[in-house]
Amino acid sequence: MARVAIVGATGYTGLELLRLLSGHPHVEVTCVTSRKEAGKSLKELFPFWPRDNDLVLSPPDPQDIALKAELAFLCVPHGAAAKMAVELLKEGLKVVDLSADFRLRDKGVYEAWYKVLHPAPDWLEKAVYGLSEIYKEEIKKAQLIANPGCYPTASLLPLVPLLKKGLVRPKEIIIDAKSGASGAGRSPKLQLIYCEVNENFYAYNIAQHRHTPEIEQELSKAAGQDFLINFTTHLVPMSRGILATIYAWPKEGVSEDEIRTTLEEFYRSSPFVEVLPPGQFPQTAQVKGTNRVLLGLTLDSRTGRLILVSAIDNLVKGASGQAIQNMNLMLGFPEEAGLSFSHPLFP
Amino acid sequence: MARVAIVGATGYTGLELLRLLSGHPHVEVTCVTSRKEAGKSLKELFPFWPRDNDLVLSPPDPQDIALKAELAFLCVPHGAAAKMAVELLKEGLKVVDLSADFRLRDKGVYEAWYKVLHPAPDWLEKAVYGLSEIYKEEIKKAQLIANPGCYPTASLLPLVPLLKKGLVRPKEIIIDAKSGASGAGRSPKLQLIYCEVNENFYAYNIAQHRHTPEIEQELSKAAGQDFLINFTTHLVPMSRGILATIYAWPKEGVSEDEIRTTLEEFYRSSPFVEVLPPGQFPQTAQVKGTNRVLLGLTLDSRTGRLILVSAIDNLVKGASGQAIQNMNLMLGFPEEAGLSFSHPLFP
Amino acid sequence: MARVAIVGATGYTGLELLRLLSGHPHVEVTCVTSRKEAGKSLKELFPFWPRDNDLVLSPPDPQDIALKAELAFLCVPHGAAAKMAVELLKEGLKVVDLSADFRLRDKGVYEAWYKVLHPAPDWLEKAVYGLSEIYKEEIKKAQLIANPGCYPTASLLPLVPLLKKGLVRPKEIIIDAKSGASGAGRSPKLQLIYCEVNENFYAYNIAQHRHTPEIEQELSKAAGQDFLINFTTHLVPMSRGILATIYAWPKEGVSEDEIRTTLEEFYRSSPFVEVLPPGQFPQTAQVKGTNRVLLGLTLDSRTGRLILVSAIDNLVKGASGQAIQNMNLMLGFPEEAGLSFSHPLFP
Amino acid sequence: MARVAIVGATGYTGLELLRLLSGHPHVEVTCVTSRKEAGKSLKELFPFWPRDNDLVLSPPDPQDIALKAELAFLCVPHGAAAKMAVELLKEGLKVVDLSADFRLRDKGVYEAWYKVLHPAPDWLEKAVYGLSEIYKEEIKKAQLIANPGCYPTASLLPLVPLLKKGLVRPKEIIIDAKSGASGAGRSPKLQLIYCEVNENFYAYNIAQHRHTPEIEQELSKAAGQDFLINFTTHLVPMSRGILATIYAWPKEGVSEDEIRTTLEEFYRSSPFVEVLPPGQFPQTAQVKGTNRVLLGLTLDSRTGRLILVSAIDNLVKGASGQAIQNMNLMLGFPEEAGLSFSHPLFP
Repeated sequence: MARVAIVGATGYTGLELLRLLSGHPHVEVTCVTSRKEAGKSLKELFPFWPRDNDLVLSPPDPQDIALKAELAFLCVPHGAAAKMAVELLKEGLKVVDLSADFRLRDKGVYEAWYKVLHPAPDWLEKAVYGLSEIYKEEIKKAQLIANPGCYPTASLLPLVPLLKKGLVRPKEIIIDAKSGASGAGRSPKLQLIYCEVNENFYAYNIAQHRHTPEIEQELSKAAGQDFLINFTTHLVPMSRGILATIYAWPKEGVSEDEIRTTLEEFYRSSPFVEVLPPGQFPQTAQVKGTNRVLLGLTLDSRTGRLILVSAIDNLVKGASGQAIQNMNLMLGFPEEAGLSFSHPLFP
Repeated sequence: MARVAIVGATGYTGLELLRLLSGHPHVEVTCVTSRKEAGKSLKELFPFWPRDNDLVLSPPDPQDIALKAELAFLCVPHGAAAKMAVELLKEGLKVVDLSADFRLRDKGVYEAWYKVLHPAPDWLEKAVYGLSEIYKEEIKKAQLIANPGCYPTASLLPLVPLLKKGLVRPKEIIIDAKSGASGAGRSPKLQLIYCEVNENFYAYNIAQHRHTPEIEQELSKAAGQDFLINFTTHLVPMSRGILATIYAWPKEGVSEDEIRTTLEEFYRSSPFVEVLPPGQFPQTAQVKGTNRVLLGLTLDSRTGRLILVSAIDNLVKGASGQAIQNMNLMLGFPEEAGLSFSHPLFP
Repeated sequence: MARVAIVGATGYTGLELLRLLSGHPHVEVTCVTSRKEAGKSLKELFPFWPRDNDLVLSPPDPQDIALKAELAFLCVPHGAAAKMAVELLKEGLKVVDLSADFRLRDKGVYEAWYKVLHPAPDWLEKAVYGLSEIYKEEIKKAQLIANPGCYPTASLLPLVPLLKKGLVRPKEIIIDAKSGASGAGRSPKLQLIYCEVNENFYAYNIAQHRHTPEIEQELSKAAGQDFLINFTTHLVPMSRGILATIYAWPKEGVSEDEIRTTLEEFYRSSPFVEVLPPGQFPQTAQVKGTNRVLLGLTLDSRTGRLILVSAIDNLVKGASGQAIQNMNLMLGFPEEAGLSFSHPLFP
Repeated sequence: MARVAIVGATGYTGLELLRLLSGHPHVEVTCVTSRKEAGKSLKELFPFWPRDNDLVLSPPDPQDIALKAELAFLCVPHGAAAKMAVELLKEGLKVVDLSADFRLRDKGVYEAWYKVLHPAPDWLEKAVYGLSEIYKEEIKKAQLIANPGCYPTASLLPLVPLLKKGLVRPKEIIIDAKSGASGAGRSPKLQLIYCEVNENFYAYNIAQHRHTPEIEQELSKAAGQDFLINFTTHLVPMSRGILATIYAWPKEGVSEDEIRTTLEEFYRSSPFVEVLPPGQFPQTAQVKGTNRVLLGLTLDSRTGRLILVSAIDNLVKGASGQAIQNMNLMLGFPEEAGLSFSHPLFP
């Protein structure tokens, strides 16, 4: 059994790692940390925790973590994550960082969007962007994984294969994305309390969302040329799920059939990504609690525009599930280990 | 007091008319019909109905309606609405039809999208499209109003002034719209039951939604040239509200400021439409239960794209509220009568 | 027009006062305060606020309030409310306190349940408990109203008439009450954030809820003898509404019919309370946004137990609506002024 | 691998069996039936269904089922279930019936509450009531299991041990229960559509719920004497979960500690039932998606009343999970097989 640590275990991505790893055949969680709740047992905080498991939250001390684990998941805010990563990497651990700290290859872009100096620029080029289906071979050899953002995961998987193959025009792509509230984390802010989110729907961070450069970096890489996108995010009054509605121009002569076939072939051996047949489009409830990605598409015959729709669970494929998928690749386990269920919790 | 009838009073738009008209100073509801529930009193079906009001549902008989009312709101499905409208118009009543039957000027377009023969093509050119802010003078003189669809209302109000003034390019407009579940009506269908909608989000009728030609008709008219749009609709797990996120290309040299000013001036004298200041964007909860339209916008300096966001309550400005606004204009009442509250039911 | 102040205007009860008073024919809100947001205009904080109303939040300064208003609503936490009330009463204002500070006649009981010294015990006997239907005459003459708690309002209205008339046994009453999340206020606490409340249901403060002594005080008064009850509260994943399910033993020989008739007669002249016919029970959605109270009941023929069910909107009849009803009585306005709508916002 | 059939596979309990059995190490679903959807594959109806599983829905033909499976789960309405059960039992299959048909020992009681003649009274005494923790030994030997109702499961588990040991008075027990909407099934009825359930809370079937005699039968058996209870059910605007708040009188001299200890000991070896420590009470979100039962309790020192609170997932321990637990016992598998996860899907 591999021993792993979860740094920041009481937030939603930390809890989701605990949920998913409780069914993992090759991994044992040996260390959980929390700055605020150190000293308390998980059982104390979460009554559903099994009686026979006595994990206690410890303060986030790198040396202590290094003694207890060989791989650490970082579920702490950007900035704090990079500092912790450097310490753990120094101790020889493998690290899957769920924050944004190592996702952007360009220090300047990071600093422009996140408004802070990068705490560990030396590691930027060594980190591997953990979009598992795209960077599988690199991930296997990585010591540090930058686990992708939830929105980028939903946005990139349908587009990357099409840009790689040159089927869509790189320019003028619009990604109109919608997320459940768990994506905003487990911190008490006025705009997150129940009565502010419930029975409400709105766009936020318009033209300013920090996942924009992350998506642009990877799309540009796939297309072999730099370009910008429009990316808009919305808050949906539900707990889990992301749906991305994507508008793009196919290159001249490209048919819906060619696009669908390209995606199907690209993901043929992927256990998690599935392309729906013509006329079917995904719903977030169809992936709730699973690591799956459902893709649907149509080429609007009236306007010529391609419309792609993707659905993921933001806490699973959009965060903790993909983190485990990456860990599986890093540690030589089967890619699906602990993630093989495909039936969502529905309803 | 004007006497009005509600044909199809037990659906959500019928109920909303009853709610709003209960506070109208110049109108009395004298006739309510229901095919299924005829013979029952409203009090019997709706325990909240006032004890001292003994309105009883009658079958939808045009002559009976004509005896009791001078204006009728039609809250029945398309097809049935046109047939009823013709009968009532013959009897000299004014009619506000909330269905789609008289919205499209072109019989062929109607028949292509609705897959039925139009039941009353003669009335198509006499009907006035009841987007109150745009067709105020025509509405005042109309005998038959085609009350706009909910999505078209949210989509047209931000765009029409800009197209009229030539500030945005007519082509390549994308409208990504999201609606609460009351827009789907009050009929028991599997896909509408609670557990199918709750904790779920998805796009539906992609590239095929029947509101598309309605929006295109009015945008083309504003621009002075025919063109097509991309229009995508999504179901939000909430009861009320529509948010439309609109992407358009400004013409060269047009600034965000010019766009905002144009909209502000266009709606300066409108009691219901408001343009938010720079950096603010609307939320559906901010208009819940009101007849208001909130508009926000930004011109993305990175991509040059204009992003417009509008929020309405689909049952009020998107249906019954606008129907009353139109009735006010038709009967010579103040435009705001019965609709003057602006404070939403929040939370 | 009477000039009124809202002390603590940015919480849910303050906002609800603003919503309801915006339609009040005899009242103008001339002063709104907020400790945190002082200096900001309401328009700045709430985009739905009317453009032509330039109310600005001021710090809660009693002398300033006294200059601007003749009656003040206190929407601040207990403790702070009593201190403010004393200052305003000294300045000659009438005060409707929505906090718990003046609800309990017995200082000792207050201090035992609220764990603080009472800040103004001298006013306890002068304050009138503002359960409008029960204390109408006293309210008309009061200078200080202790506006009832939301749960007590839902619990007392069905029981007081029955205890007064001696139809139910005072002992062994159980009140199992359920409330939407707005009852917990508009403050950012972990347990109130969306993902913690959504898709969850639980009982809280079991056998310890502070509304218990308030209910017991008034039931004991009605029965003419002191007794205790069991009172349990639950959090419902919705924004508004309280439903109380009440179990009591009728006295020997008392029939369901006698109980229903007693309630009907007691509330015959009340514009807000309605007793549903046999077999009908209230739903919270039937009172959403209104000041109404719906009551249903059955006498279980198998067990002999009486089951009463009441529904209110916790922010209206359970707080701000009742506060306005009390203000109407205090200032000599019609009891229904500003509250006469009975049609809920449904759906 | 045992081969099992799901009769009525497209409702919520059928789907939940498919979800849970997809992770069962010893069972293969070899037959799924649906009267309405026969001929369609599961993949066609449920896009999340695994690509490599080609199960097709067949009509509910007993002989066909008998050829394909050795045990059948019946997820069809009462009446239809008994008829199917008799046919399958005749063919030698084991049957777990999730309907109410075999839960009541007394044919007359069944017919009085369900208003139909019992279709198979001969089997009533041979059926075993499948409350797994209480009837484990009988279940192991049974050919026909009457799987308990969701409300009875939540109500009985906290009470049976206390009545068996004589710690609470059999009379005057009140069970105030609340359920998410999935308990009402997957059929399109007006009162189940989203906008009718959302933002609403109410009691239903007051003093008439059909689970009442089922609970009374089992409580009476535990107490060794016949008695009646008050049982009230409420609809919560959420998809899953039941919370039961139970009021009972402890016998004289019985302490909270003795009650807690009794429950802890009774369930010590149960993998699914857990008694929370003093001061902690369960939440439905803590068991979502799991087969667990969480119990909390307090003895109100003011009134002497015992308050018990239990939480289950109505679709798991309240239906399909318990059905699998019973199947495990019947087929000699470990009781926890396929059900061992305890971490809920939270949020």
